[in-house]
Amino acid sequence: MSQIVLVTGASSDLGVATANALAQSGHTVYAGLNPADAHPADRLTEPNSHDLRPIPLDVADQRSVSTAVANILTQSGRIDAVVHTVGPVPRGPLESFTPYQLAQIYDAHVLSTQRINRSVLPQMRERHEGLLVWVIPTNHQADGAPYLALHTEAITMIDHLAATYAQELTEFGIETTIIVPGFLVPETGPHVRTIHPDDAETVQAYEDRYPGLIHRVDTKLAEHDLTDAEVALAAQAIAAAVSSPKGTRPLRYAPGRSSTASG
Amino acid sequence: MSQIVLVTGASSDLGVATANALAQSGHTVYAGLNPADAHPADRLTEPNSHDLRPIPLDVADQRSVSTAVANILTQSGRIDAVVHTVGPVPRGPLESFTPYQLAQIYDAHVLSTQRINRSVLPQMRERHEGLLVWVIPTNHQADGAPYLALHTEAITMIDHLAATYAQELTEFGIETTIIVPGFLVPETGPHVRTIHPDDAETVQAYEDRYPGLIHRVDTKLAEHDLTDAEVALAAQAIAAAVSSPKGTRPLRYAPGRSSTASG
Repeated sequence: MSQIVLVTGASSDLGVATANALAQSGHTVYAGLNPADAHPADRLTEPNSHDLRPIPLDVADQRSVSTAVANILTQSGRIDAVVHTVGPVPRGPLESFTPYQLAQIYDAHVLSTQRINRSVLPQMRERHEGLLVWVIPTNHQADGAPYLALHTEAITMIDHLAATYAQELTEFGIETTIIVPGFLVPETGPHVRTIHPDDAETVQAYEDRYPGLIHRVDTKLAEHDLTDAEVALAAQAIAAAVSSPKGTRPLRYAPGRSSTASG
Repeated sequence: MSQIVLVTGASSDLGVATANALAQSGHTVYAGLNPADAHPADRLTEPNSHDLRPIPLDVADQRSVSTAVANILTQSGRIDAVVHTVGPVPRGPLESFTPYQLAQIYDAHVLSTQRINRSVLPQMRERHEGLLVWVIPTNHQADGAPYLALHTEAITMIDHLAATYAQELTEFGIETTIIVPGFLVPETGPHVRTIHPDDAETVQAYEDRYPGLIHRVDTKLAEHDLTDAEVALAAQAIAAAVSSPKGTRPLRYAPGRSSTASG
C-alpha cells in the first residue's frame, strides 16, 4: 500500500538515495531539505512519474518543523512514516569542545528528532498506525576510540531514544525500525563530515601531549566513509521496511550483514 | 596533604555531607551554592575550625562558573579536586517532554560539568596534578523502567563523559574517581526531585493508554530515595578519594557494596 513518508535530512547522500528508493517503491515522499543549503533539491532527480515532493525543513527550528508537518497533513491528510537520519561526527578532545558546541551537537542529534516526533506522533496515535524509521550507524568502530567520545555518545543516545519510543508507542499501534548501516556514519558528500572543536588552544595542548593522534583519528574516519553501494543498501532497507505490512517489520535491521542484527 | 577542593551542587543533601566530610578531613573546601536558592548556606553547619568556604556558583551560567573558579585561584592559588554531583530525575513519556526541556536537562547534567571542567582543567594540566570526582548513581534500578528513559540516558552520558575524561587526561597526570552510590539519585531534600513533562495533554494521552503507570513509577522512585546513612557513606567515600595519594585512587568506587565495583 502506498504510504505518505517524510524523510528528514534529504540533502545527504543517504537522504537522496532513501527518498528515491521510497518513491520508486510507490510511496508519496516528502523530502525535507534545509533551506540554508545551496540548491538543495538539485540532487533529487527522480522522474515526475514518481511522487517525490521536496519541502523546506530545518530540523533545528521548531517553527519550520511545525509548518512542514502541517503542510503535509493539509496536502496528504496523514503521515504514515518518518525517516530520521543522523548528524555529523564530532572529533577532538572532549575538553576542547565549548558548552555551546555540545549544545549544538545535542540539538542536531536529539532535539531535532524530538521536534519531528512531537509534530507527527499525535496524528499517528489518533489513527493507531504509523512507523518511525531511525538510521543509526553502528558504534563498533568508534567505541573507545580516542577523540570520538561525543560521536559515540550521540549514537548511544539516539539508539536509546529510538528504543524508548519503540517501547512507549507499542500500545498506540506505532512501529519502529532501526536501520543499522555497516559504516561509521552517513553524511553529506563523499567524505564523513566532522565537527572540529572551537577551542584551538586546548586542542594544541592535547596534540603536544599525544602527538599525531588527531591525524590518526582522521585517517581512521576517512577509511570508514560510506561507499555508494552501502548507501544504496541502506536506502533499499528503509524502503523495504516502509513497504512491509504492519507487524512484520524488524525492530533492528543491519543491511548487508545479516537479515537481523543487534547493531 | 590538605587539598583545595571545589564541590558543585553543595546545597543538596549529598553536597552538604560531602563538603563537611572533606572539611573534617582537613581540606580547604569551596562549597558551590546556587545564588538562586533561598538561604543556601544555612545547612553548611561546620564549625569555623574547619576551612569550609561557601561561594556563589550557578553551573548553568558560564560567567558564574568562570568567576567562581577565578576567585578560588586568586585566593588559594590552585584547585586540586572538583566534585561533580548529578541533576534531578526526569520522569514521564518521552514524547511529552518539549525540546526546550530536553535542552535544560542536558544542560543540568552535561553542559554544567563541561563549564566546570573547562575552567579548572587548564591549571591542573599545567601542574600535571589534579582529581575529578564524579558522583553517578547506579543505573540498575532505572534501566528499562518505563518513563525513566531520560534519567537513564543522563546517567549513561555522564558516566561515558567521566570515563572519557579519565582516559584523555591520563597523560596530563590528572586522575578520575567515579563514586557510584547504591541509590537511584542524590538530590535536594528528603525525596528524589523529579522533572515532570511540560506537555500535560500528551501525558494524559499516555495515561489513558497505560492507566496508573505514572503513579507506579513515582512509587518506585520514592522507594529508591536515599537514606541518611547512604548519603554519609557516599560523602565519606568522596573524602577518602580526595585524601588518598595520587596513584592509589580507584577509578570506580561503590560505597557500601564492595571495595571496588563496576557500577
